[in-house]
Formats: sequence, C-alpha cells, structure tokens
Amino acid sequence: MKIARFGVDGQVRYGIVNGEELTEIRGSIYKKFKVNDIKHNLKDVVLLPPTNPSEIWCPGLNFANHLEYAAEVLGEENPTVPKHPEPWIKARSSLTGTGNPIILPVDCSGEVHYEGEAVAVIGKLCRRVTVQDAHQFVLGYTCGNDVSDRVWQRDDWTFWRAKGADTFAPVGPWIETDCNAQDLHMIVRVNGKEVQHGKTEEMLFSFGEIISYISQQVTLYPGDLVFSGSTGVTVALNPGDVVEVDIPGIGVLSNPVVAEVTL
Amino acid sequence: MKIARFGVDGQVRYGIVNGEELTEIRGSIYKKFKVNDIKHNLKDVVLLPPTNPSEIWCPGLNFANHLEYAAEVLGEENPTVPKHPEPWIKARSSLTGTGNPIILPVDCSGEVHYEGEAVAVIGKLCRRVTVQDAHQFVLGYTCGNDVSDRVWQRDDWTFWRAKGADTFAPVGPWIETDCNAQDLHMIVRVNGKEVQHGKTEEMLFSFGEIISYISQQVTLYPGDLVFSGSTGVTVALNPGDVVEVDIPGIGVLSNPVVAEVTL
Repeated sequence: MKIARFGVDGQVRYGIVNGEELTEIRGSIYKKFKVNDIKHNLKDVVLLPPTNPSEIWCPGLNFANHLEYAAEVLGEENPTVPKHPEPWIKARSSLTGTGNPIILPVDCSGEVHYEGEAVAVIGKLCRRVTVQDAHQFVLGYTCGNDVSDRVWQRDDWTFWRAKGADTFAPVGPWIETDCNAQDLHMIVRVNGKEVQHGKTEEMLFSFGEIISYISQQVTLYPGDLVFSGSTGVTVALNPGDVVEVDIPGIGVLSNPVVAEVTL
Repeated sequence: MKIARFGVDGQVRYGIVNGEELTEIRGSIYKKFKVNDIKHNLKDVVLLPPTNPSEIWCPGLNFANHLEYAAEVLGEENPTVPKHPEPWIKARSSLTGTGNPIILPVDCSGEVHYEGEAVAVIGKLCRRVTVQDAHQFVLGYTCGNDVSDRVWQRDDWTFWRAKGADTFAPVGPWIETDCNAQDLHMIVRVNGKEVQHGKTEEMLFSFGEIISYISQQVTLYPGDLVFSGSTGVTVALNPGDVVEVDIPGIGVLSNPVVAEVTL
C-alpha cells in the first residue's frame, strides 16, 4: 500500500495511491483510518513530504564503499569503519517534497551533491526497542535525497548547513508499507542518466539496528524519518538539473535544481 | 513581561506571570493576543517548556573559558577558537520543562553534567537576517540546561545522545520579553550551592550573531530555541540532586535528577 500526503484546496490530506489514482482516507495513518470515496488524479494534487516529522535522522557512514570517499571529503587520511551507528540530525527546515526545487544557496561552495537513500518512516512511539522488534515500529519506506555541500561538510564542525540547508532534504513521493527494507535498489539519475546505484542489503547497519540504537537514548515519534546512508562517489548538481531518486517498488522522488535568488 | 506555557485541565495554554499569579491569554504569543480574566496561582498549574520548537539550536563553543575544558573533554590537545558560530541541533525529544526530572540513562557514563545557559526564543520567521536586525526576530529569553554526558560527547561523532538524550534539554520557566540579552548572569546551583556563573557579555558570538549566522542557510521558525553556550568547568550530576539555572531578571529553571528505571 502506498500512502501519500498531499495538498488539495489549501488543506493537507492523506490518501492511498493506485496507479494514477489517489483515494482520500479519514483517520490517522499511524492508528486507524478508512478509505473514503473522494478520488483525485495524482496530476491534480501537490504531493507533500509524506510526514511532518519531529526529527530527521541519518546513520553516519553506513556503506563500506562510501568510507574512502567520505574520508577524502572530510580531509581524513584513514577511513574509519564505525563500530555502531553514528546518528546525526538533519535540520527539519531542510525537508521538501517531490517536485519542489533543491535551491543552491548563493553562498554555497558549488559542490552540492545528491545522495540517494531509502528512508524508514516511524509508525509508533519507539523507546529502547530491540533490533528484532524495530520493524514493528516502522510504517513503511520512502525515497530520500541527503543533499550535501561537500565543502561545508568538510569545514564545519557539524553537518548543520552542509546537509541541513533549506531544501536539502527532499523526501517522497509516498510511503510504501509493503517492501523488503534490506533488499531495495536506490538509483539516482541526473537529467535521466544513472549516477548512483546503491543496495540496502549493503548497509553496514540495517534499519532495525539504526532505529534500535537511536531509541536507546532518544524517543522516536510517529512520522520521524530515518535515512539509510549513501554509497559511493557523487558529483555536483547544477542549476537546471533534475535529480531523481528511484527505488523500484516504492516510487520516484524527482526534484529540479535551481540557484537561489536573493534581493 | 513574562509569558508562560502551562497545562491546566488537560489543555495547553499561555499566560502572563505576575508574582505568583498567572493570567491566561487568548491568541498567539507570536502575533496578537489579549489578556483575559482567567487567573491561576502558579502553584496550581504545570509549567511546560515555554514553546514547542521546530528546532533547538546551540552555538558550539561560545565562551573563551570553556575552550580548554571542552578540548580536554573531546581529547584534543589545542583548544581551537571558532572563527564563526558552529551551530548544532539538540534533539527535540530532549526538551523538558521546569520541575520535570533529568533522567540519567541506565547506560550513561556517570559523567552527566549541567550547563546553565540563556536561551533566545525566536518570535518571527527568520531567513537571512543581519546581525543588526536579528533582535527584532526574538520574542524573549529563558533559561536552559544543556545537559551533557561527557563520555558520549568525547566518543561519539556527534552530540546526538551526549546532549540529545531524552530530558537532556530542560528549558523554562517562562519567556521574559524585556531583558538585555548580552547582560545576563547565568547561575547554576546544585542542591543550593553555586557551581557555575556565566555572563552573556562574555559570549564569543552574541545571540544576534548566532541567529543571523544560522538564518543564512536554515530558516528559523517562531518558537525555535537558540542556546547561548556555556562557560567553565562543570561536574557530574547524581540521582537525588536538584539543579537550578537562575538568570536574575528572568527566573529559575529547577529540575530534580533521577536514575532511569527500566523493566
């Protein structure tokens, strides 16, 4: 089942996606809901980020083949394999939906890269859950782009702007509740050309391990987002590009890239 | 004017504090509100964190006399003076109000310390504001405790749990709208004994500089909290302690310290 959050007539609603058709639901996607008889064509609504999360989590380095590149970006000599997840928080203001522009700040480095990722959507309040039980607290999965300014990522003490600048967290297009989380392909295309292809089976820490680890100290809430981490070497985005994160079985998150306009 | 957020009859309300009296208001504390005629005694209500922030920001090292201690905590040889604020995000789940316990996790290091700070409360949406204009976007100031596990702070890649574990962000008791932000004394007492005394005039970066800097890349929203940073050497909290952050002219944030109980 594909659950979308969308705007219509100035209101935020949820619905179930079937092909090009979107059927509204009543109730809470985290508790109980009923499908009603109001239908829309996907083309007639504005898809929003699939939740309004209290927090957006990322795991730190989570792919063996991203370690050397990350060490290079951060100016470190020897890539270090983490012994456990090293969670960090992506600023909530960076969240944006499919179709919305990724805005390159006027003062960014010019080295703003995509990172195509799978994203777990928390479905239930979650504190000190085990790795084995963690999947019971996940509503489903969606696509995410951990947009990253590589120079800020290297020079700042934290990722607050490198990965948290406004519009640097496109997420969507919807939540797929039925998928095998550790058997997903995460394909990134820029202007139609494949530039990244990761597999969640190669995650150093599974979604269950990351969620369990965070929940030992920090409570996770329904709607919170947990990114998978990314893989391999990436290249810079430029104004005019269109970047897609395609996870077969889930959907395609597509965002144009624009330069910031200031007065 | 002192604006408190509180719970009464199971509802969240705002009110104006005068001595022991709390008078309810109607409307938005960020836009327009009217004082109505419903009064409470402060003792009869539960004070809540003064806002429900979209984000909690801290500035990185912001006091010259905290640099050497911080370098020691982080295992670095030479303390580095930052050239600009180095913002980071404190997990929203860590937020708690005055009177609520700071809970020491069962698996914490035993070196969980207080950091008494002043906290700016954003009053208006804020993007690319100048240092000079930043104060116009601040509603007022309150007290905060940047509770920190010193071992996690040293060993983890980020402060996600060192400073973001549940209950590690007591904030309150209310917002004071009329104070000179760069002339505040931040006094911490543990069990009545003064253990820390900082002055906002010694901040390396003023609130205006921090807010302006963050707002260049990340939009700040009404209710967002911006901590001042902390000063000097601190010591560990223990179960049974009561820790107070007292900012004369604002109020006293008081929290008991308890050990986590797990099943």
